[in-house]
Amino acid sequence: MKQVSIIGIGLIGGSFALDLKDYMSGVHIIGIDQNEAHLKEALELEIIDQIGDLDSLKTADLVVLAIPVNAAIKALPQVLELIADHTVVIDMGSTKEAICKAVATHPRRAQFLATHPIAGTEFSGPSAAIKGLFKNKTNIICEVEKTLPVLGEEMLALFKTMGMRLRFMPANDHDKHIAYVSHLSHISSFMLGKTVIDKEKNERNIFDMAGSGFESTVRLAKSSPDMWTPIFEQNKANIIETLTEYIQNLNQFKAYMEQDDFEAVYNEMKNTNHIKQILKGIA
Amino acid sequence: MKQVSIIGIGLIGGSFALDLKDYMSGVHIIGIDQNEAHLKEALELEIIDQIGDLDSLKTADLVVLAIPVNAAIKALPQVLELIADHTVVIDMGSTKEAICKAVATHPRRAQFLATHPIAGTEFSGPSAAIKGLFKNKTNIICEVEKTLPVLGEEMLALFKTMGMRLRFMPANDHDKHIAYVSHLSHISSFMLGKTVIDKEKNERNIFDMAGSGFESTVRLAKSSPDMWTPIFEQNKANIIETLTEYIQNLNQFKAYMEQDDFEAVYNEMKNTNHIKQILKGIA
Repeated sequence: MKQVSIIGIGLIGGSFALDLKDYMSGVHIIGIDQNEAHLKEALELEIIDQIGDLDSLKTADLVVLAIPVNAAIKALPQVLELIADHTVVIDMGSTKEAICKAVATHPRRAQFLATHPIAGTEFSGPSAAIKGLFKNKTNIICEVEKTLPVLGEEMLALFKTMGMRLRFMPANDHDKHIAYVSHLSHISSFMLGKTVIDKEKNERNIFDMAGSGFESTVRLAKSSPDMWTPIFEQNKANIIETLTEYIQNLNQFKAYMEQDDFEAVYNEMKNTNHIKQILKGIA
Repeated sequence: MKQVSIIGIGLIGGSFALDLKDYMSGVHIIGIDQNEAHLKEALELEIIDQIGDLDSLKTADLVVLAIPVNAAIKALPQVLELIADHTVVIDMGSTKEAICKAVATHPRRAQFLATHPIAGTEFSGPSAAIKGLFKNKTNIICEVEKTLPVLGEEMLALFKTMGMRLRFMPANDHDKHIAYVSHLSHISSFMLGKTVIDKEKNERNIFDMAGSGFESTVRLAKSSPDMWTPIFEQNKANIIETLTEYIQNLNQFKAYMEQDDFEAVYNEMKNTNHIKQILKGIA
């Protein structure tokens, strides 16, 4: 593998580029992005070797889609038209059903592998790229059976080299579960931030009172709306289900408090405490 | 100051003891706790110099109350009965109105200083005690005007020596604001944990899919129900208000999604993004 074209050289695409350089000697990385400032920055930071355009896809061995999921489902069919017969294309989006559907009947479907590395931070852009971001992280692979084995295996070997754990599941299962363990957390965090900002907007210095606990729960509210709005749109049904259940649980907790049933309040917390054991598995 | 009695030698009391030893040469720390295993552990860890009982309060220069807030409002009036005329008593609870009310007319009210150092972790017990826990943290002091100046000033100087920033406010203001920037975060986190555990209980391995974002938002769900239930009980009215607003915001967000109004979804997030600037002030 010699030429890799990365479409979207932000946090994820940029971090992937840094790891590629570490694990693949002689690789030549071409960056493609609508944001010219980001392209220049990525070149200066030596994340990419060259600024390119869609023409570069004709000679690419690997094409990486690391753009917001709405842009990805539009771009992928076009990308598949432009590539050579030996090229493999991967995406890295946080939703998998829509992108798999978008190319379900595409003649070059077998050259695409749908992936979702569970890695990232609340920051964005090439300056947020981190070497080793994917190490010890889980990469969820969907519809692996629809990818040409030789291409799929090459990618899975690459992910393992980068230190990722691999999980395989159908795209609709991915979207259902990820709504609970990722998308809901983001909404919870954004709305927590909103609630506090709305209340305390005239008393900005009140945030002196906030400690690390508050920071931890609202950290995700720093995330990029450009990235997250299309995710919420594509995973609408699953997210609405999680939100409904979350709001129900909050209403129940509030009702216990209103009824002065603090034994129930205690039990709600006690029963959730074993999240400790569950979280132990998360790096 | 030579003898300090600390009632409750868990995370907060234990960490305070460790700092006292650092900043006050020759101090002798007596630990008092209902949990004998914790007392032995604290002695072994050299957090305290001696295991004691309420008799030790008679000769104490400083008494520190670091027990759950329901126990603290019961203990404080009794503690004030036992101390000498020169002794100062501080509490460190996460609610301030109830404890100030509990001793409002006590003859020894002027020997008490109500404090809330905004510091801690989701862990508990003496083994969770950390040296330097209070460094660069905010300590909120309530009703300072009701404490004998010579005693209050001695305590404030001690807190500053430990590296704390001091904020002064009425107890009811403290409880109102802390509901937003701390108590609500804990409920949000517990209910998020509950929602995900309930949904995924038959698919435990699904937590492989959880990343650092999920971990960050549910971290506080590891917190001790013994500590938090009485806090929620004492700050019931304020917390119900914050919960009501939080649930309203979540319902609004969900409604935007149901109406396919993703421009509104985007704006909700964009408008909350400046939490970045606000959080910069938090260590």
